[in-house]
Formats: sequence, C-alpha cells, structure tokens
Amino acid sequence: MPKLVFIRHGQSEWNLKNLFTGWEDVNLSEKGVEEAKEAGRKLKEAGIEFDQAYTSVLTRAIKTLHFALEESGQLWIPEMKTWRLNERHYGALQGKNKAAAAEKYGDEQVHIWRRSYDVLPPLLSADDEGSAANDRRYADLDPRIIPGGENLKVTLERVIPFWEDHIAPDLLAGKNVIVAAHGNSLRALTKYIEQISDEDIMNVEMATGQPVVYDLDDKLNIVNKEKL
Amino acid sequence: MPKLVFIRHGQSEWNLKNLFTGWEDVNLSEKGVEEAKEAGRKLKEAGIEFDQAYTSVLTRAIKTLHFALEESGQLWIPEMKTWRLNERHYGALQGKNKAAAAEKYGDEQVHIWRRSYDVLPPLLSADDEGSAANDRRYADLDPRIIPGGENLKVTLERVIPFWEDHIAPDLLAGKNVIVAAHGNSLRALTKYIEQISDEDIMNVEMATGQPVVYDLDDKLNIVNKEKL
Repeated sequence: MPKLVFIRHGQSEWNLKNLFTGWEDVNLSEKGVEEAKEAGRKLKEAGIEFDQAYTSVLTRAIKTLHFALEESGQLWIPEMKTWRLNERHYGALQGKNKAAAAEKYGDEQVHIWRRSYDVLPPLLSADDEGSAANDRRYADLDPRIIPGGENLKVTLERVIPFWEDHIAPDLLAGKNVIVAAHGNSLRALTKYIEQISDEDIMNVEMATGQPVVYDLDDKLNIVNKEKL
Repeated sequence: MPKLVFIRHGQSEWNLKNLFTGWEDVNLSEKGVEEAKEAGRKLKEAGIEFDQAYTSVLTRAIKTLHFALEESGQLWIPEMKTWRLNERHYGALQGKNKAAAAEKYGDEQVHIWRRSYDVLPPLLSADDEGSAANDRRYADLDPRIIPGGENLKVTLERVIPFWEDHIAPDLLAGKNVIVAAHGNSLRALTKYIEQISDEDIMNVEMATGQPVVYDLDDKLNIVNKEKL
C-alpha cells in the first residue's frame, strides 16, 4: 500500500515579515529550518521509507525536503524539482506587506485576494522587474504559461498535470512518495485527492513543517490520513 | 562553450578519524561543510551558471553539492544521484583505521591497496554485515554488480557509462554541468577526459571542496582547466 506524504515548507523569512511571497525565492527562517528537521525526525520515527521525492524550484521547499530527508536518513533518494509545485504566484502583491496592502486596498479586497478560489491578484507583466520571465529557472517554459499572478484555481490547473504525469504513476507502481511544497500547491493537491469543494478548500490550513501522511489503495483511494 | 565542474566532497568525519570510508555513508565534518560553502562562493564569484548537477548516493557528496549550489544561488537546478559516482568501494577495509591496517598487513601492502591501479582490496561478501547488498539504496541493482571491493580500474569501468549516458550528452547540448563526487570517482573521470596513464593517475590528487573547472569545445576537447 503506497504512502504519500505532503510537507509544507517551514517558516520562511518573509512569513516572519508578513510579506506576500509567491514565487519570490526567500529562504527558511531559523525556526523554519528547525521545523524541517523535526519533520524528518517524525518521518524516521514513523519508519516511512521513501522511493521518490518531489519539490518546487523554490529554495524554501527544496531545503525543507533536504533537511527532512537527511534527518530521516534518506537524502540519497531520487529528487525531482518542478515549477508546477511552486507556491501560488501572488502577482503584483509579491514583496508587499500584507498589512500595508490592507491599508491601501481595504481589508475586504485583500481578504478576497487571499481567500477566494478564483479571483486573480493584481498581475505582473513580463516587463516588470519582479516577473518570473526574467528568472533563469523558468527559461525553458513557454513564455505564455509564465504566470503574472494566480488564484488557487489556476494553481490547481498547473499542479494537477504533475500529479497525473509523475506522482500518481509512482504511487500506482507501489512507490512511497514525499512532496515538499507550499501552502497553495499542496492545497491544490489536497483538494484534488480529497475531492474538496471550491468553497471549503480555502479554509483548509496546511501547517508548516508538519508531514501529512496518506495511505492509499491500489486505485489511489485514501485509506487513512494522519498528521505527524 | 560548455563548462564542466568537478568538486570532491569536503572533509568527512572519517577523513578526520583516518578510517577507510568507501561506500560507508559518513557525514561531512564541520570543516567539510565550510569547504563546501566556500566552493559555492567561488562558483558564484566565477559567475558559473549550471544547468545540471550530478552526484553520488552518498550523503557527503550530496551535501557538498547542496551547500555549493545554495551558496551560488542555484539550489533549484536539476539534480540526479547515481551509485555510479560513488567513491571506490574499499571492500573489507571499510571502517578500518588506516594506521591499524598498516600494522596488521604491513605498510607496503596497504600502500598497494591504496595506490595501485588494478589491485583489489580484501573483498566483502554479500553476507557480510557491511555489504552494500544490505543497503536499500542499492536494491534496484542487479546483485551481480554490487561490488565487494574495487580498485580504480573497476571504479572507472562503472563511472564511464554514466559519463557516456548523461554527462557527455548534456555537455554536447551546451549545458554547464557540476559533478559533486569522491576522490576516486573523480579520478576516474579525470583519467578518462585528460587521457592520463594508469601509472600517473594514482598520483593525481583531488583537493576536498575545490572546484575544478573545465572549458570544453563542441567535441568535448579540453580548452582550459582551472582550479578555483
């Protein structure tokens, strides 16, 4: 029975500063590093042996994966990074203070941007300094799919092809898989595999650095879900 | 013009203790961590942008790669781990103190084991506790190719197929490649690409944590070699 583990990256430096992060490549805070190591100790204690790891191309998720794998004695397992597991792109809000944004645009508008399933944030254009179009790590992407801002709906639409092409085939082959990613890319996967409604998913919280373990049957139905 | 960078892992805990290491999965020492980070700073200073990373399935090489990539702002590049880049397997000598081995077998014999191109060390059998046959990371290997001990000749014979199948095609496609590995797997690659004789290669030293940068032409001839 294959096991699937989700882990949201530990606290980042911008979580601490209350900034919108999205695709900005910020590091883990010291607390975030500790959360990732603690996750690894819990995985070791639970005796989960992984066959494959997936993560985003953002440092905070990659490092969370590495700390968790190292602490559980599995740094050697195959790892694949993909932009498809990136955090939701927060558009022109990236790098902005959440409280300052609430002052500028009003609490309600910011709440909508943060918590609605299908409202887009203010978009970045490819010419804007902070655009992912200027980042070498996305140089192989068709420019037309580099987002200027995403809601959860759009995030889900680019995450699920990765599930279909990589994660699900591994699980169907009996492999145990760990996915180290972000609040919203993991929300997207959670919504998909748990069949959660558009309304309810926005209230599902992913705790930083806490492994969520699914036991699946051979049709990928969920047999058990446990938070370590 | 593609760039190829070799980096031998930083000092390990067993380098410090003067033990034969081989495929034993020991960690970096504190000094080794610093060496790896310093390598990353040098790579950043040199402005080398990588497209692909390769390393072994041994923690000390993997961590060296991760520290070097993180310090140079490139932790997000694709990474592939392979047993083919592992250190030379030191057979029954693994875990033994080098000085104690010299007392038991004589200086000359130990010197031959360490420095001859084609003399095998005392072998481990698959039943021995320390055998790689009992390690989950080699579970997908044909048991007949799991070594009980290697010389540099045998090491080279299992390293070069990886060069042929992965590293060389990447370089031919114009990619910049970093290989984080071990004294003897890097010796094997160095021997092959620099066409060094069986006698001379044993005197080639790979410094821990020092990036060796090759500029190659489109036939993979060496145009320039520089140690950072």
